[in-house]
Amino acid sequence: MLGVLGGMGPLATADFLAKLVRATPARRDQDHIPTLVCSAADIPDRASAILGQGPDPLPAMRAALARLEAAGATRIAIPCNTAHHWHAALQAGTALPILHIVDAVADDLAGSGLAGGPVGLLATGGTLRAGLYPERLARHGFTCLSPDPDGQDAVVAAIDLVKAGQVAEAALILEAQARALAAAGCRRVVMACTEIPVALSSLDDNLAGVMVDATEALARACVAACRADAVVLPLVA
Amino acid sequence: MLGVLGGMGPLATADFLAKLVRATPARRDQDHIPTLVCSAADIPDRASAILGQGPDPLPAMRAALARLEAAGATRIAIPCNTAHHWHAALQAGTALPILHIVDAVADDLAGSGLAGGPVGLLATGGTLRAGLYPERLARHGFTCLSPDPDGQDAVVAAIDLVKAGQVAEAALILEAQARALAAAGCRRVVMACTEIPVALSSLDDNLAGVMVDATEALARACVAACRADAVVLPLVA
Repeated sequence: MLGVLGGMGPLATADFLAKLVRATPARRDQDHIPTLVCSAADIPDRASAILGQGPDPLPAMRAALARLEAAGATRIAIPCNTAHHWHAALQAGTALPILHIVDAVADDLAGSGLAGGPVGLLATGGTLRAGLYPERLARHGFTCLSPDPDGQDAVVAAIDLVKAGQVAEAALILEAQARALAAAGCRRVVMACTEIPVALSSLDDNLAGVMVDATEALARACVAACRADAVVLPLVA
Repeated sequence: MLGVLGGMGPLATADFLAKLVRATPARRDQDHIPTLVCSAADIPDRASAILGQGPDPLPAMRAALARLEAAGATRIAIPCNTAHHWHAALQAGTALPILHIVDAVADDLAGSGLAGGPVGLLATGGTLRAGLYPERLARHGFTCLSPDPDGQDAVVAAIDLVKAGQVAEAALILEAQARALAAAGCRRVVMACTEIPVALSSLDDNLAGVMVDATEALARACVAACRADAVVLPLVA
């Protein structure tokens, strides 16, 4: 049973769950992946913690993970990019495999036929500071480009707008920053914060071909992993 | 912590989670209601069981409820109308209060200023056969009207289309049946299957004023109950 360590934020978790369902080949309820979601909205802000401006979210994330384990989860996904700063710490405390959202994005990029080059990142300041993307994408020949300081401030403000439910206002800001990264030579721009695709859910064709949705990439990785589990488990039983 | 006994179907559960988030007054992640979701897609079909055409879903629903209890849920919601046929049986097996989706709809209707009269039901054959709505709505002076047999067959086919991801095809059918019920004198038509608002997510103004979304009503009832819990708990501690 897939366990989703969510609530970071709650709307992004709902978006992930919908994308997980849509990524599953299914004709009826029973074809879908049994899933447990812990939308632990009370987890302290991840970006603030990385920037040294807020409490450590790790204890609350560990508590949410323990709830998922108690309920019977066998594999974990975390639909929050910034939270992956604590991926290794969380993985060290559990035997359940935890998927990595940046690996899912890297697989997506590698599968798209692009042979390296600059990739744009729309992300929180915490995700950028933690360097979550550059190292893992470098393995596939990609370099990372983020907005200039003013642009990055705008991205952070837009993410907060999504968390406050002001999705249309956020979309205008994020679209402009995505276009700027594309104009700077990025053939792909990763929505590397799970609030961002909530705002940018409808894009014109030009931009749609450029954007990579980390939430969707993680959902697809979950479907692949859980279907592989389903194939393996009967052989073990 | 709110526990959601879901997966009936999975897309309806994702829709419920998004509506729960939107129904919560919040400016940041931490203002939201901590929520556990068990999307137990493997629960046997509820409508088939009521119609004597399939296995009993109660054991699988009880197992999902046990997972939510193990993970620390303190209050339960079930975003599936037909599953409420087993509401009393589930409630008898747990000390956690289980909200009732039809009571949430009745509160909604009563709060809308309507003083009784006929209300249309778009629902599964199981929900109609089980009589989930008529008794509880009668307490508020409402009578229930469902489509004629051909119309009802169309509604059931549309629900299956949603479960198979064919949302646009389902919308056309459901809209026609809703209009027929309105034309037959129903001042409100309840989307009394949680797959239906997934299909009818955008309605023209005429129909939007008529439709009542049971998923949204349940989400609002959850927010009210959980906020009341939050007020009471500190006094107890």
